[in-house]
Amino acid sequence: MAEPSRLEQLERRVRELEEELARERGRQQAPRPRIENMSPEVTDSNPYSRLMALKRMGIVKDYEKIRTFTVAVVGVGGVGSVTAEMLTRCGIGKLLLFDYDKVELANMNRLFFQPHQAGLSKVQAAEHTLRNINPDVQFEVHNYNITTLDNFEHFMDRISNGALEEGKPVDLVLSCVDNFEARMAINTACNELGQIWMESGVSENAVSGHIQLIKPGESACFACAPPLVVAANIDEKTLKREGVCAASLPTTMGVVAGILVQNVLKYLLNFGTVSYYLGYNAMQDFFPTMSMKPNPQCSDQNCRKQQENYKRKEAAQPKQEIVEQEEEIVHEDNDWGIELVSEISEEELKAASGPVPDLPEGITVAYTIPNKEENLITEETVAESEESLEELMAKMRNM
Amino acid sequence: MAEPSRLEQLERRVRELEEELARERGRQQAPRPRIENMSPEVTDSNPYSRLMALKRMGIVKDYEKIRTFTVAVVGVGGVGSVTAEMLTRCGIGKLLLFDYDKVELANMNRLFFQPHQAGLSKVQAAEHTLRNINPDVQFEVHNYNITTLDNFEHFMDRISNGALEEGKPVDLVLSCVDNFEARMAINTACNELGQIWMESGVSENAVSGHIQLIKPGESACFACAPPLVVAANIDEKTLKREGVCAASLPTTMGVVAGILVQNVLKYLLNFGTVSYYLGYNAMQDFFPTMSMKPNPQCSDQNCRKQQENYKRKEAAQPKQEIVEQEEEIVHEDNDWGIELVSEISEEELKAASGPVPDLPEGITVAYTIPNKEENLITEETVAESEESLEELMAKMRNM
Repeated sequence: MAEPSRLEQLERRVRELEEELARERGRQQAPRPRIENMSPEVTDSNPYSRLMALKRMGIVKDYEKIRTFTVAVVGVGGVGSVTAEMLTRCGIGKLLLFDYDKVELANMNRLFFQPHQAGLSKVQAAEHTLRNINPDVQFEVHNYNITTLDNFEHFMDRISNGALEEGKPVDLVLSCVDNFEARMAINTACNELGQIWMESGVSENAVSGHIQLIKPGESACFACAPPLVVAANIDEKTLKREGVCAASLPTTMGVVAGILVQNVLKYLLNFGTVSYYLGYNAMQDFFPTMSMKPNPQCSDQNCRKQQENYKRKEAAQPKQEIVEQEEEIVHEDNDWGIELVSEISEEELKAASGPVPDLPEGITVAYTIPNKEENLITEETVAESEESLEELMAKMRNM
Repeated sequence: MAEPSRLEQLERRVRELEEELARERGRQQAPRPRIENMSPEVTDSNPYSRLMALKRMGIVKDYEKIRTFTVAVVGVGGVGSVTAEMLTRCGIGKLLLFDYDKVELANMNRLFFQPHQAGLSKVQAAEHTLRNINPDVQFEVHNYNITTLDNFEHFMDRISNGALEEGKPVDLVLSCVDNFEARMAINTACNELGQIWMESGVSENAVSGHIQLIKPGESACFACAPPLVVAANIDEKTLKREGVCAASLPTTMGVVAGILVQNVLKYLLNFGTVSYYLGYNAMQDFFPTMSMKPNPQCSDQNCRKQQENYKRKEAAQPKQEIVEQEEEIVHEDNDWGIELVSEISEEELKAASGPVPDLPEGITVAYTIPNKEENLITEETVAESEESLEELMAKMRNM
């Protein structure tokens, strides 16, 4: 008599546990159904209503176009993870994620990853979270270091062929890495492929950062100009080995990811003005902008080739189109296209930056420029003195 | 014979399900153990190493002090939720959260909330996520609308007594609400209590935002100056009823939350310069700053009382301390303490803003100012003409 009752109890317990487990899993994993077309309809259940409202507000002409774009995010740390999340929530078509790190509790002072993900690879953990947030986005993740030879080739291949339509290149590459080697690898790949990309970085002391748009041949590449040391150039592993670590803040990284993705949206959906360089000095709430032309003597031969291509293309275009293109460049004031949009005086800048191009407050160069005749600064000086010479001669002719 | 085997099967199934459920819950909920003291030790398992590094980098003198502070976040939407997450990850002592909304799929275009949380109250969902991220933080959540009479009284009581040490006031109130009434309620409470707070807002078209520091009696309160319509003043419910909705972007809201919490950290931990007003124009990547003195004719009697208190306190302080305090105010150029840090000309500003105080580009006022003699603008005009009169008289005397 006792046994059937025990049996019943167990059967009931199994049912309860199964329900509980389904609820638990559902809460965590069951994604919403895919949405075929973005709708502007204002209902509580429409995840796109507030984005489609950008059309009615007159900000973006064709918001749905976001679904046709593919963006590669290299580095899924403090900046890259938030960048990927913002793009996912905006409904980007496809995301390629590259990273080889694991989630650690030491990352918990930045947004995105959660303690229970410690030990998982960053790309795996990110894909799980992002798929759950927006199942309309396609994900392709690569758990490797792009700077080794084999991986670099595979990285190049995926950048060239990994768009929504396999065989087509991605629309944009975003560098959210934390070391010099990885930035140079992305720079090399993008110069070879003529791939437009955006750089981002946060300083070791956690209180400044920047983003930079690089159009191979058109604007300065990472090798053209002395890299601006707003970015942390020290490998995290080295730092750890030496028993020190760089500081980081969720605030600075959130701001940098925010201005990065905002400029990605402006670039892809064609609204507002895309910044070529935007800095963030958190101590003073100062946000310098500037733009830089490529260096004709850049050490990267593919950058020099892209510069030739750009010049040819520009020369071949009818005049009207060139004017339109010129408008895209925010500030072009001198031979190097460097213009500072800030309230500090040129004297202050010169005093602060020394024998390098004028840089906004808080930005210093990673290394000094070799004193060759064909380098960046000498070029500018030569150009300036040539102008004065012509003026002088004109005056003399008039005498 | 069949029955014991069935029993065994069921017992095994129950064990399996219990283990599975524990694993599932563990993955999702089991928080890391509490950490008694923040350590600068560089290990993968230390969630505070990158924050404690701010000391070694010379940015913050005493980072551990963060654990002694209590911050109230009013509004846990696109800005408030990210604000709360950043403070949680930074290891703030205690957070008070106020909101009365539920999570909806329509919120998924902003950071923080996830689709499985749809239907939960925002404060409940936020508390669950944040506790899991950092169990060292204390949470107190209130699922109500602060603008109704009873709730307003309770809100005032919690602001006054809800610090880590019960009976002491919170260190800072952050307004992350999306409507005028809630902002005015916070303003009224803080003026009455002399509570320092920060305002934040994002425009309806999603491409601009701002933060503002309000020290009752010392800087302009929300009622002192015409509210700057960078903030969306339209109630979401009203918008929905009319079948339209405001646009929003995770980028803009992430940037506003980032600059808000960055200024909270600067204020609490005493580093850098805290901005009195910082705007964000996403279309142009333009970040105007300014500061405003309170209006002696402010409609809020408690603001006027706080102004008197501040003047008395200022007068009673020895001169050196006053100088130190003055330094805190970033820009003080004219009678109203309004200074524009931007490259646009005064003429452009005047043309853009009409018969109101000079405002940075992209900022317009919510309502025009009544044409009374004692209002903000007239005061300024009178002060200006009095000066000219004196100069004129001085010249005449010299004739």
